Amino acid sequence: MAEQSETQQAESQQAETRLALRVVAMPRDTNQYGTIFGGVILSYIDQAGFVEARRHGCHRWVTAAINTVEFQAPVNVGDVVCFYARTSRKGRTSVTVTIDVVAERYMTNACVDVTSASITLVAVDAGGKPIPYTSPPTVREPGVDDPIG
Amino acid sequence: MAEQSETQQAESQQAETRLALRVVAMPRDTNQYGTIFGGVILSYIDQAGFVEARRHGCHRWVTAAINTVEFQAPVNVGDVVCFYARTSRKGRTSVTVTIDVVAERYMTNACVDVTSASITLVAVDAGGKPIPYTSPPTVREPGVDDPIG
Amino acid sequence: MAEQSETQQAESQQAETRLALRVVAMPRDTNQYGTIFGGVILSYIDQAGFVEARRHGCHRWVTAAINTVEFQAPVNVGDVVCFYARTSRKGRTSVTVTIDVVAERYMTNACVDVTSASITLVAVDAGGKPIPYTSPPTVREPGVDDPIG
Amino acid sequence: MAEQSETQQAESQQAETRLALRVVAMPRDTNQYGTIFGGVILSYIDQAGFVEARRHGCHRWVTAAINTVEFQAPVNVGDVVCFYARTSRKGRTSVTVTIDVVAERYMTNACVDVTSASITLVAVDAGGKPIPYTSPPTVREPGVDDPIG
Amino acid sequence: MAEQSETQQAESQQAETRLALRVVAMPRDTNQYGTIFGGVILSYIDQAGFVEARRHGCHRWVTAAINTVEFQAPVNVGDVVCFYARTSRKGRTSVTVTIDVVAERYMTNACVDVTSASITLVAVDAGGKPIPYTSPPTVREPGVDDPIG
Amino acid sequence: MAEQSETQQAESQQAETRLALRVVAMPRDTNQYGTIFGGVILSYIDQAGFVEARRHGCHRWVTAAINTVEFQAPVNVGDVVCFYARTSRKGRTSVTVTIDVVAERYMTNACVDVTSASITLVAVDAGGKPIPYTSPPTVREPGVDDPIG
Repeated sequence: MAEQSETQQAESQQAETRLALRVVAMPRDTNQYGTIFGGVILSYIDQAGFVEARRHGCHRWVTAAINTVEFQAPVNVGDVVCFYARTSRKGRTSVTVTIDVVAERYMTNACVDVTSASITLVAVDAGGKPIPYTSPPTVREPGVDDPIG
Repeated sequence: MAEQSETQQAESQQAETRLALRVVAMPRDTNQYGTIFGGVILSYIDQAGFVEARRHGCHRWVTAAINTVEFQAPVNVGDVVCFYARTSRKGRTSVTVTIDVVAERYMTNACVDVTSASITLVAVDAGGKPIPYTSPPTVREPGVDDPIG
Repeated sequence: MAEQSETQQAESQQAETRLALRVVAMPRDTNQYGTIFGGVILSYIDQAGFVEARRHGCHRWVTAAINTVEFQAPVNVGDVVCFYARTSRKGRTSVTVTIDVVAERYMTNACVDVTSASITLVAVDAGGKPIPYTSPPTVREPGVDDPIG
Repeated sequence: MAEQSETQQAESQQAETRLALRVVAMPRDTNQYGTIFGGVILSYIDQAGFVEARRHGCHRWVTAAINTVEFQAPVNVGDVVCFYARTSRKGRTSVTVTIDVVAERYMTNACVDVTSASITLVAVDAGGKPIPYTSPPTVREPGVDDPIG
Repeated sequence: MAEQSETQQAESQQAETRLALRVVAMPRDTNQYGTIFGGVILSYIDQAGFVEARRHGCHRWVTAAINTVEFQAPVNVGDVVCFYARTSRKGRTSVTVTIDVVAERYMTNACVDVTSASITLVAVDAGGKPIPYTSPPTVREPGVDDPIG
Repeated sequence: MAEQSETQQAESQQAETRLALRVVAMPRDTNQYGTIFGGVILSYIDQAGFVEARRHGCHRWVTAAINTVEFQAPVNVGDVVCFYARTSRKGRTSVTVTIDVVAERYMTNACVDVTSASITLVAVDAGGKPIPYTSPPTVREPGVDDPIG
């Protein structure tokens, strides 16, 4: 799952940042301290990576690695949480997505940096084999096989 | 909860539309047909109303009424769902928020109109009494210690 | 999704009211104020509409519209919440269901009116096309395709 | 937690049966076989016991024992599930509740017996000590501030 | 679902006890009293029975009966909860599993006995018919039919 | 949140590995591909770090960083998933925990390496300030009344 040596990285500097996800933190998301459970934030980071990666091709994208996540501030109940994503590396079959998480505080509307993360996703075919993400769309019906169309 | 006769409605025409929420539809959100459960979409619409209303003042905002929701297309697993909100009416203690829901299809990235909704939220104080939302911030620490009784 | 002009409405006066759903409100259902999240109530209203609609035919029923929901009182943790439904309009392919929500208070057992809602559901075939709900049963296996029988 | 020798059991024969809970089985409730997870049914049985027990006094009721649960048929996605409860034994500080679970099948509306259960609940005060359930109401505000320790 | 008369029970004395499940109790698992909802514990007990039963054969195992569950102490938010299981009876098509639940307290790390339970599981084939669990593996793909392999 | 230069790392070689968590993967945990959502695995990894860290002192432990997570194989519905943890670095106020995730496959009972992760947790006091984890216990009652703010 390496590809680290590929050199399209120069373009990452000017990569466009997009709002991948925006959610309201709810009491059901809390941990034993009454703040939002880190696992919930990590789940959204994983989804935000998918949201950004699918822009590069309609394939199945699997998370190959979480390279780093640094938590700077907790998220509280009632905060509106924004996940900003940009593609920071483009390989042949994989991309690396950088995600910045910002909480708009419930009590003040102030924006606070929560965490930054970097994750790598790989485009795979139906059998789970990595494929160039510039391939024609390979994505199939989601698991539940009966959408209303 | 009326206020319907107030006449700031003219301004709604040029109200700014914002992306209130953006989420990924997951299998746990499905109904018995394999598409996304309408109740899940309604829950996000309710949250999107809150996200827009809090821009008008740091108060507790409660949903007074869902005026109308029309479902035009189902949401499928894997779709990225966007909730665009704008304030379509401003009263003294309440606002009405119009929410447009768009699904970015999992298999094609195509955007599809899912539903439009209009909901009314009222700013209330700690005791649950409506207050002008232009009041100084009244919101307190989130928690379970403050039921409206 | 109109059909509003159909005139079987006279019969709605004497329509029978049934207990469609009855649930206990739990902490995981709360919002940032410590009361039950409106989206949770809306989800149950959507289900209650389905429960009433299926009495008219074993088809797939999709929610076409939420006509109105007025919230009169909050629901608290521990309340037992009842959803009473009656068919208030019968069209050819759709029905409108009126739902009254009553909370039995946790601390006193007192009954409190929470909200009234009206929603319209349409009978559709496997392809999502509206069909007369007096048709022979068309419902198929639910999404997960392997019931034990 | 015994009290088993108390002899008000004769009255259980003619005890009134009530619909304690009624819910729709959803895909998020399934197990690895695609049918409804037994743990979900057990959770509702526990709640149905609480719903019946609180009729005997506004106290905190804790589940002391599940005496027996026999599963006769699976529940499928889309089924409407009814939990009928009656008080089958009345002690001084505890009651035993018998719960019959019936599934209204999604595809046919046919009613199928799913399981019968018997559970014992004890009325306790704020400190967790059993008290006669004929005591004046002792229940307090719901919240996390009152662990039994 | 009887088989109670089978006589391999002698071996249950020296049956090996294994840690079937270990989880952290979270706020979303609480009931209206702020302690962990009994239904959540029952759900894990059901899963722990499955974890132990599958050691006896790769079949579909369904819970036939919960023979008894006695609650001795509540579980609190933040506790680490251990489910120890052993096979206490081996029939031809079914096994009975005894499960001891121990909470490691959040505030002290002290271990507290929470409950003991006994549940009976039956091995069934794809059509739901009981089969000897010593049969060759009959288990099939789980409900969602598209694992990545 | 550094402390990276501390040199107790030598002891990490022979650190004891413990089973921190063990769970069954359920359909509600799936992503749009029908396999288990990576965010669910990340949530358990976060909890497993907490379970290991609390062995070093009864404090509030917050996740400061996810250093790395490499996904090697997907988890499927019905798999039993084990999270093995060991303390790989001990600082003054923080520890780094290495977590190995193994899936026992539903269909074969075979064990498959899913991922390895390394996360850093910091002991903090009620105000959120890092403290030496060898301090006397500082942990307080769980609850929502103590946001780190």
